Amino acid sequence: MTGSLVIAGLGPGADAMVTPQVSDALARATDVVGYIPYVARVAARPGLILHPSDNRVELDRAQHALQMALDGKQVVIVSSGDPGVFAMAAAVFEAIEAGPAAWRDLDIEVLPGITAMLAAAARVGAPLGHDFCAINLSDNLKPWALIEKRLRLAVEADFAMAFYNPRSRARPEGFARALQVLKDACGDARPVIFARAVSTPQEAIRIVPLPDARAEMADMRTMVLVGNSATRVIARNGAPFIYTPRGVSG
Amino acid sequence: MTGSLVIAGLGPGADAMVTPQVSDALARATDVVGYIPYVARVAARPGLILHPSDNRVELDRAQHALQMALDGKQVVIVSSGDPGVFAMAAAVFEAIEAGPAAWRDLDIEVLPGITAMLAAAARVGAPLGHDFCAINLSDNLKPWALIEKRLRLAVEADFAMAFYNPRSRARPEGFARALQVLKDACGDARPVIFARAVSTPQEAIRIVPLPDARAEMADMRTMVLVGNSATRVIARNGAPFIYTPRGVSG
Repeated sequence: MTGSLVIAGLGPGADAMVTPQVSDALARATDVVGYIPYVARVAARPGLILHPSDNRVELDRAQHALQMALDGKQVVIVSSGDPGVFAMAAAVFEAIEAGPAAWRDLDIEVLPGITAMLAAAARVGAPLGHDFCAINLSDNLKPWALIEKRLRLAVEADFAMAFYNPRSRARPEGFARALQVLKDACGDARPVIFARAVSTPQEAIRIVPLPDARAEMADMRTMVLVGNSATRVIARNGAPFIYTPRGVSG
Repeated sequence: MTGSLVIAGLGPGADAMVTPQVSDALARATDVVGYIPYVARVAARPGLILHPSDNRVELDRAQHALQMALDGKQVVIVSSGDPGVFAMAAAVFEAIEAGPAAWRDLDIEVLPGITAMLAAAARVGAPLGHDFCAINLSDNLKPWALIEKRLRLAVEADFAMAFYNPRSRARPEGFARALQVLKDACGDARPVIFARAVSTPQEAIRIVPLPDARAEMADMRTMVLVGNSATRVIARNGAPFIYTPRGVSG
């Protein structure tokens, strides 16, 4: 039997945000590969083998999945959110480029998912309603100086900003430095949104003006959004709405 | 009966990319509001009133939806892709901020969708696999000079880039200028992806090196993605894979 590899996004957490095409791919899979907590979101059934693996072994995981597909399995690699945004898809194509020629001709498909920044944005209004950027704040795979440079240029471009992986136990200091760069470069009180575990039972959302933002407000499961210079806060009973206007006057 | 307003993303086109929570909201709606081709994607049924409206009347449409919700209807505003990315959500919150106080206390929910850039990226590999930005190339609501400034800063930051609304009949010249800015600023042959009508029967994808990109390759239904300086092209039988590596060496 000819194997295949699907690289699928499970969305931020809720089953109601998993697309039907991803559910269908999981229903047809013989093998599901991914980081432990993401594989745990896939229901066990007869005929399906789950292959959970630890964090930071993305290339090993990709190679394993590619080899199983070459051996005739129907393999699905699962990522949280969208697989193309700071997740497994790029690792798989890195493995393909460096791997045996036969991997290139496999039946490979990427199925998008609801990425964390869009799920978080939806919870508070439309903070990414104008031009924006997405930056991975982990310096595991890039120099910290490049992150700071990008932050400064993003502020100069007046992008709204979405930050993935703001903070982890292995990198406790970086996010505090990033916040300081933003405070210095922005010089205003635009809203910062800390959106933790969106769409799960642990969801917690906190909105603070940039001068009051502290590194401790984020952890490994937090997505951080920062408005642009025109982002608005609409006060109301309950949590405010946050939105970034669609236009900029000439 | 208490009304409600849901601002929902239908994804790029295929039903298989509509999330279950959006399908559920549509099943409960009494009124669906949106731009004509998006409302046309919602199946008619007894008890559901469809309110299609023309392009460029976003604020009128938002006000109409808010007023119906205040009158007790279960209203869904539909956008293509994700409603928070260059779509209806920001227009609704603009209308709320400027409108009667009662609108602020309505039951309002934004439901994310698969936005065009992620659907397009998935079709070719993982071109947005590292830090990236999303820019609306329409100058209907912002000065053209700001678009050019953002393009130059995005290249300086070495972001991969996603361009919404590259070209329309009303704005035939802007995209050619944008491409020239990119050619001058990048000075390389990084891949440009023209992804038209992704996930629909009209889907067409074209990948060209930046020096060969021409404005005529895009139209109103095209999403344009541009790699960063490290984006890779993996040749194979059939269409190549494009990916942007996860890391940058120090």
